Amino acid sequence: MVKGFKFGAVEAGIKYENRLDLGLIHSEVPANAIGFFTTNEIKAAPVKVSQPRLAGGWLQSVIVNSGNANACTGPQGLEDAETMIRETAQGLGVDPSLVAVCSTGVIGRPMPMTKLNSALPGLIKGLSTDGLDDLARAIMTTDTVPKISVAEMDLDGKPATLAGICKGSGMIHPNLEPVQGARLPEATMLAFLMTDAAIAPGALQEAMADVLPSSFHGLTIDGDTSTNDTLLLMANGAAGNVAIENYGSPGGSDFYGAVRKVCIDLAEQLVADAEGGTKVVTIRVLGAGSEMEADMVVMAIALSPLCKTAFFGQDPNWGRIICAAGYSGARVDEDQIEILFDDVPVFAQGMPTNRETEAEAVMAKEAFTVTVNLNMGTDQREFKTSDLSLDYVRINSEYTT
Amino acid sequence: MVKGFKFGAVEAGIKYENRLDLGLIHSEVPANAIGFFTTNEIKAAPVKVSQPRLAGGWLQSVIVNSGNANACTGPQGLEDAETMIRETAQGLGVDPSLVAVCSTGVIGRPMPMTKLNSALPGLIKGLSTDGLDDLARAIMTTDTVPKISVAEMDLDGKPATLAGICKGSGMIHPNLEPVQGARLPEATMLAFLMTDAAIAPGALQEAMADVLPSSFHGLTIDGDTSTNDTLLLMANGAAGNVAIENYGSPGGSDFYGAVRKVCIDLAEQLVADAEGGTKVVTIRVLGAGSEMEADMVVMAIALSPLCKTAFFGQDPNWGRIICAAGYSGARVDEDQIEILFDDVPVFAQGMPTNRETEAEAVMAKEAFTVTVNLNMGTDQREFKTSDLSLDYVRINSEYTT
Repeated sequence: MVKGFKFGAVEAGIKYENRLDLGLIHSEVPANAIGFFTTNEIKAAPVKVSQPRLAGGWLQSVIVNSGNANACTGPQGLEDAETMIRETAQGLGVDPSLVAVCSTGVIGRPMPMTKLNSALPGLIKGLSTDGLDDLARAIMTTDTVPKISVAEMDLDGKPATLAGICKGSGMIHPNLEPVQGARLPEATMLAFLMTDAAIAPGALQEAMADVLPSSFHGLTIDGDTSTNDTLLLMANGAAGNVAIENYGSPGGSDFYGAVRKVCIDLAEQLVADAEGGTKVVTIRVLGAGSEMEADMVVMAIALSPLCKTAFFGQDPNWGRIICAAGYSGARVDEDQIEILFDDVPVFAQGMPTNRETEAEAVMAKEAFTVTVNLNMGTDQREFKTSDLSLDYVRINSEYTT
Repeated sequence: MVKGFKFGAVEAGIKYENRLDLGLIHSEVPANAIGFFTTNEIKAAPVKVSQPRLAGGWLQSVIVNSGNANACTGPQGLEDAETMIRETAQGLGVDPSLVAVCSTGVIGRPMPMTKLNSALPGLIKGLSTDGLDDLARAIMTTDTVPKISVAEMDLDGKPATLAGICKGSGMIHPNLEPVQGARLPEATMLAFLMTDAAIAPGALQEAMADVLPSSFHGLTIDGDTSTNDTLLLMANGAAGNVAIENYGSPGGSDFYGAVRKVCIDLAEQLVADAEGGTKVVTIRVLGAGSEMEADMVVMAIALSPLCKTAFFGQDPNWGRIICAAGYSGARVDEDQIEILFDDVPVFAQGMPTNRETEAEAVMAKEAFTVTVNLNMGTDQREFKTSDLSLDYVRINSEYTT
């Protein structure tokens, strides 16, 4: 599917029986790679050991498990993460400096290393070019569906593929930082993008930085940025194209477009599979007085429990939306604000429009957009969020016990 | 009960029938007064018309309704708020500049002025020295119990009383500003404090500023700061004491102590009656590197949906707490953090203590404290919050429709 890449997944019994929970990504040759890791000050052991490995810009294999985050597990956790890398490297016959490890699951529990070590030989043996779907299942935690997106490219005559998978349903507010600078969003989101195109490191970085604000950094489920969030992008060059150096290179626009398409698709799948979520709500703030103020308003609305329960109840209670805009810290003027549910205005010129019935019809849909035009300037920001449902509370009040 | 003060409440039928929803506070003589109003940039009409009246430092009467916030109601809303003041002043025979109006309820609905005007004569006629309990009921919205606190004082030989009432259950994160400066927290919280003591304006201001951080500004239910939050403190001097100028005045420590006691008591009643709340959780952050960082950590934990659903589930999932501390933006070090549920440490020296069973017993209580010692400095902050329960979602997904 993606030339030169193999994927695998097995049941290691990390937290549950009869469930894929250990996965592997392997490229036949070292791939150009970039990584983005959580900005949470508390970083899980796999983040601590993988982040420095990405500094060199090369990666060949990734071992990944669900069911245990290996976070806040002390020196033993670090040793366990290192062991996962070492054993994987040895089994595959690759240099340990080219292997990364990712984990997702409960925080503060020791890794069941005996189980992991027992499962590893079978995992390596089962590597297959067709293993992407099983891998996408192996990284799921409270996710209800695997999340995969694939784009085909034509790079100056050479066919190439970009495949992406991700997971994340709760503790989702991605805020990642690349190995070199630039602040972005969080969750335990894990996302892996693999391409057989030949892409120079600068172009990997640029293509991803370009799309992050409108994909993984443009969504939140609960505002909780995880200790384990990781996004890895690997390009192994098996497609045989002349390496893309930037957007202007032959095939460059195709590659940047493929990254954009796959990231936006995966981000939408994430929000659609939010814990307990019944709605995908796009919060669009227009006319802010500054970029920071656009962010402040969009985040206040996207994280407000009152707005999110109203989305769940399909209740066009715009009073909660204007209230959140008002306490966000941004400059707002009641007489200037316009609020719309899709194309139905509910508040304009300082007054209700009394069109709640039409707004209710909009909110009955699975996906809709809330537009807040502050009419104070020209800055804007868009964010996707889920609703706050009874099932979100049920799922999260029963998670570890 | 409080000399020179009368209180009243009637059923005006603003939103529901057979429910007290219009109240009145009246002092026989003009009282020294201070007011604190929401910092939300979107302010309800009653806030807009009452805030400037407090600038003079005097107040004699307050008309207050539940069931309708009179917020985002345009010029008509302002006119309605002014009408409520004017009619009240006329009925009582007081100067309209000495009357304030407060409202709480749904945003964006026109005030039912015919009902209000019809109910007003009966409200004035029914004023009574014993009316405080009915008044406390009349201001309730989703509150399940009225909230009253009374303190008796001995001011250099003169007996005096401070009585306080408040309401608030959702949209609660008080962030008020006094007429003159100083930033504080929000909700629709309405709080009224009345004393017959003679207190100079500077002492009213100082006593309240002293206790706000540990009372109304030390709590959050859902992080949503309302458009209507108002706190009024009136002192009419009927007790006949020599006016208290500051803490050092005769009786000063008694008065400051009474304000402290009543405000802390009311704030605790607010959190205990949080919408759907089953727990009162005190979040205590110690050892922060700066005051701002202490605030950031305490707020991240107090507002995290994952922490709050864990409190509801009585699940000692400290991983969510350390995760919130980690993304708060404060400087934290995993190896230095200690987390305790009451006196049970669950995380210390970079490692879990494996004492979840004891922590579960703590969380089974109605009230407990989560202490997070960052061990990075000497700053600290304490905040009270509620849990995020199934009933919170039920109440707020059904509110206006």
